[in-house]
Amino acid sequence: MKLYEQFPVSITNSLSGKKEPFVPLNSPFVGMYSCGPTVYNEVHLGNLRTFTAFDVVYRYLSYIGYVVRYVRNITDAGHLTNDAGEGVDRIEESAKLEQLEPMEIVQKYTTSFHEICRIFNILPPSIEPTATGHIIEQIEMVKKIMANGYAYEVNGSVYFDVRRFMEKYKYGELSGRNIDELQEGTRELDRQDEKKNSIDFAIWKAVSPNHIQRWPSPWGEGIPGWHLECSAMGTKYLGKQFDIHGGGMDLKFPHHECEIAQNVGAFGTSPVRYWMHSNMLTVNGEKMSKSKGNSFLPRELFTGSHPLLNKAYSPMSVRFFMLQSHYSSTLDFSNEALSAAEKGYKKLSNALTTVKKLKFQPLGAEDHDLRSELNRLIDGCYLNMSDDFNTAKTLAILFEMASRINDWNSGKGTAVSEATFNRFKQTYIDFLEQVLGLREEEEHNQEMVDGIIQVLIELRKKARTDKNYALSDKIRDDLKAMGVQLMDGKDGSMSYSIE
Amino acid sequence: MKLYEQFPVSITNSLSGKKEPFVPLNSPFVGMYSCGPTVYNEVHLGNLRTFTAFDVVYRYLSYIGYVVRYVRNITDAGHLTNDAGEGVDRIEESAKLEQLEPMEIVQKYTTSFHEICRIFNILPPSIEPTATGHIIEQIEMVKKIMANGYAYEVNGSVYFDVRRFMEKYKYGELSGRNIDELQEGTRELDRQDEKKNSIDFAIWKAVSPNHIQRWPSPWGEGIPGWHLECSAMGTKYLGKQFDIHGGGMDLKFPHHECEIAQNVGAFGTSPVRYWMHSNMLTVNGEKMSKSKGNSFLPRELFTGSHPLLNKAYSPMSVRFFMLQSHYSSTLDFSNEALSAAEKGYKKLSNALTTVKKLKFQPLGAEDHDLRSELNRLIDGCYLNMSDDFNTAKTLAILFEMASRINDWNSGKGTAVSEATFNRFKQTYIDFLEQVLGLREEEEHNQEMVDGIIQVLIELRKKARTDKNYALSDKIRDDLKAMGVQLMDGKDGSMSYSIE
Repeated sequence: MKLYEQFPVSITNSLSGKKEPFVPLNSPFVGMYSCGPTVYNEVHLGNLRTFTAFDVVYRYLSYIGYVVRYVRNITDAGHLTNDAGEGVDRIEESAKLEQLEPMEIVQKYTTSFHEICRIFNILPPSIEPTATGHIIEQIEMVKKIMANGYAYEVNGSVYFDVRRFMEKYKYGELSGRNIDELQEGTRELDRQDEKKNSIDFAIWKAVSPNHIQRWPSPWGEGIPGWHLECSAMGTKYLGKQFDIHGGGMDLKFPHHECEIAQNVGAFGTSPVRYWMHSNMLTVNGEKMSKSKGNSFLPRELFTGSHPLLNKAYSPMSVRFFMLQSHYSSTLDFSNEALSAAEKGYKKLSNALTTVKKLKFQPLGAEDHDLRSELNRLIDGCYLNMSDDFNTAKTLAILFEMASRINDWNSGKGTAVSEATFNRFKQTYIDFLEQVLGLREEEEHNQEMVDGIIQVLIELRKKARTDKNYALSDKIRDDLKAMGVQLMDGKDGSMSYSIE
Repeated sequence: MKLYEQFPVSITNSLSGKKEPFVPLNSPFVGMYSCGPTVYNEVHLGNLRTFTAFDVVYRYLSYIGYVVRYVRNITDAGHLTNDAGEGVDRIEESAKLEQLEPMEIVQKYTTSFHEICRIFNILPPSIEPTATGHIIEQIEMVKKIMANGYAYEVNGSVYFDVRRFMEKYKYGELSGRNIDELQEGTRELDRQDEKKNSIDFAIWKAVSPNHIQRWPSPWGEGIPGWHLECSAMGTKYLGKQFDIHGGGMDLKFPHHECEIAQNVGAFGTSPVRYWMHSNMLTVNGEKMSKSKGNSFLPRELFTGSHPLLNKAYSPMSVRFFMLQSHYSSTLDFSNEALSAAEKGYKKLSNALTTVKKLKFQPLGAEDHDLRSELNRLIDGCYLNMSDDFNTAKTLAILFEMASRINDWNSGKGTAVSEATFNRFKQTYIDFLEQVLGLREEEEHNQEMVDGIIQVLIELRKKARTDKNYALSDKIRDDLKAMGVQLMDGKDGSMSYSIE
């Protein structure tokens, strides 16, 4: 029996608003898409939360045996500041500000994004397609939508005809928006007069020759509409219908709503079976925004160089902090919460280091209650993760497991079979490292640190044998000042931990 | 006066075979292109040498004040096993072998390539364009070449008409090949009958519907020819003519020769002013090849997991090893050479650590001979690098500088002005770190190592004060066994170095 059969997954589907059993279209294969960054500046902490949330979904589904093809795109063209496909082109604008060619901007911030992912242990997806890498596919899709009558061309731009689409299909189902209210709320914008209705959105946008990024098309030179790339790339790599589509909650409307309309308009099929949306990150209870000065860059966390930060926090502490909430809850960012996360992460991480060295020590006959208890904890990891990827509850279980590990490490034997012990040990290691993506930090030079501390421990033993307690205490105190805590074992052995 | 005016660069141009003064088209801007990897498997050590060579060219030109736009492509489509544009598609073949979608292969090996670059401190280029990201640009270029009469279509494929091209232009100039000899040497190949002459090469290739990677074109569904992507992307980002084009010597013919023909055929302009080719890496005197079992993956070097390796070598030792030869010389790889490089690198790296902490200590009146000598060394770094990027001679100078640094560190004062001292210090640091890209290894946890060693040093001082020489010697010997060498200063101070 496969793990995904033993612990069936359920997902809160944004389409229905309900938790539903997860049934892949072609099990064990799972097709999953999530919206990646627009590479015109550094990703901020809110983006990072989204990428971490879907990284964990990808990790867990793979861990329980699904064969996941995970597509996360890079938007390197076509993203205008206004959702309706109007306004300033983000990449072009950054290129002007930084006096670089647009693709230099793309390279700079793609490299930076990958570096941040590496630091936060966010895995590369199976495919990371770019908008500029799929202009042909986008043009072909525009042609299909036009051929089906759901788009029209004006002055070299092509707009999706929402009213016409609504004669046959629903629009606004994912976000629950009312189309008439939306239309009333739309501001008057540049070129809006081109559109039949203000709710229509660009799927191909004519640009002037001074726009550096532009491509030839049947409608003249232009750029693809932002919403279109995800439709084109999702379809190319995952098919006309696939299992999971994730993204930040702010993308639900209009981005994802438009994605559905484009796919239905082109192929008559709603593309996604399970829509998942991660919630916002707030800072001291307020929405993050540049103007408020409470918008964090991930790098500022390691250096502690933001006015709102009391100190620096390690990448794994931040990752742990994010996983402490369910992805669908808002998460509030504060020094207190981060400090607490740092302590929590260290506790789990220390137990991880411990458990890797821990050997099975039998203790008499098997204790059935203990066996049940250990099995409850092991199963708890799976049950909580299978329950809509509840990382918060999984972490709670891992803390219980860490306490057990520390007990065993302090010399208590284990009154269960070696098989149960090993399964417990492996589950702890795997859920921390593989599923949640938390790794031990500061592994480097550990060997030398260990070796030198051992020299001191031997000196101290000798001092105690010689009854030179002044020296013995001095060694202990000096090490303590360095953050190294010596612990005397009952049998005269000495171990240590680094704080 | 700019550094590039003070130390003018000369480059051995493969086109002329001569060393020529480097005069950029639009100084201070420099356009530079080098051929990147085909991402269908792990890059091997020979590839790494090429990327390192042009990384240093990019670093040095930027360091002396040029504003370099460095384009290094990723080949993720169109690279067939045979240079004439025939045979098996490398990406498609790996996709079949690994049972993945071609773009999953691309993602896997692009990620791996970037990781290797990061480990070896090879900088990301300014733009890293992909073949799949420039299908439209390639199709447009095929159209231009056809319109100019230098290409013809057969069965949905488009071939470059070399004989026709030679009626007006030269072909084979870069490689010095004779076209008639080449034609005689060409083997009979699949579809060759389609071509007017066997020397013709595909710039667009029809593929069957079971080929996963394929795009629509005016000639039906197909893939771009491998040689074409560099022409299209070089032109797009650097213009119809640009300054430097680099690549491994094996690419000179036919890849770079075809690139020239395509650009001349499309625009009437030879695209590149300075062609640079890095030489081969041999192993124990033999050409590297998979069948001989002497082909190394970079990762195998760190782990020492290759049958031909006696031990593991650090990335910076390998980088140092490569820079010890001029890029245009062959470089022979052996355990002896690597061990020697490891020692050499450590010497420079230790002096780097030392010089960063070193403070100016005046020593009487200025010694004019010493000043001249220091200035000779400083200028030597620039002169050697400006002389066709001679990293070998630059390293020799840096060794001389390292000796000076060690002298100063052992307490000898400096009989030159503080300005000269600082310029010397900064030149050493910059040429090692910024120009040659050699960084100190094992920087992590250094603070804790330092702190704990300090505890032992204090204990040893106390022991000596107490005339407890047995303890004092034990501490020294135990640390020595750990690779930590204590050194007693004349004034009773104690310092240490880690071997």
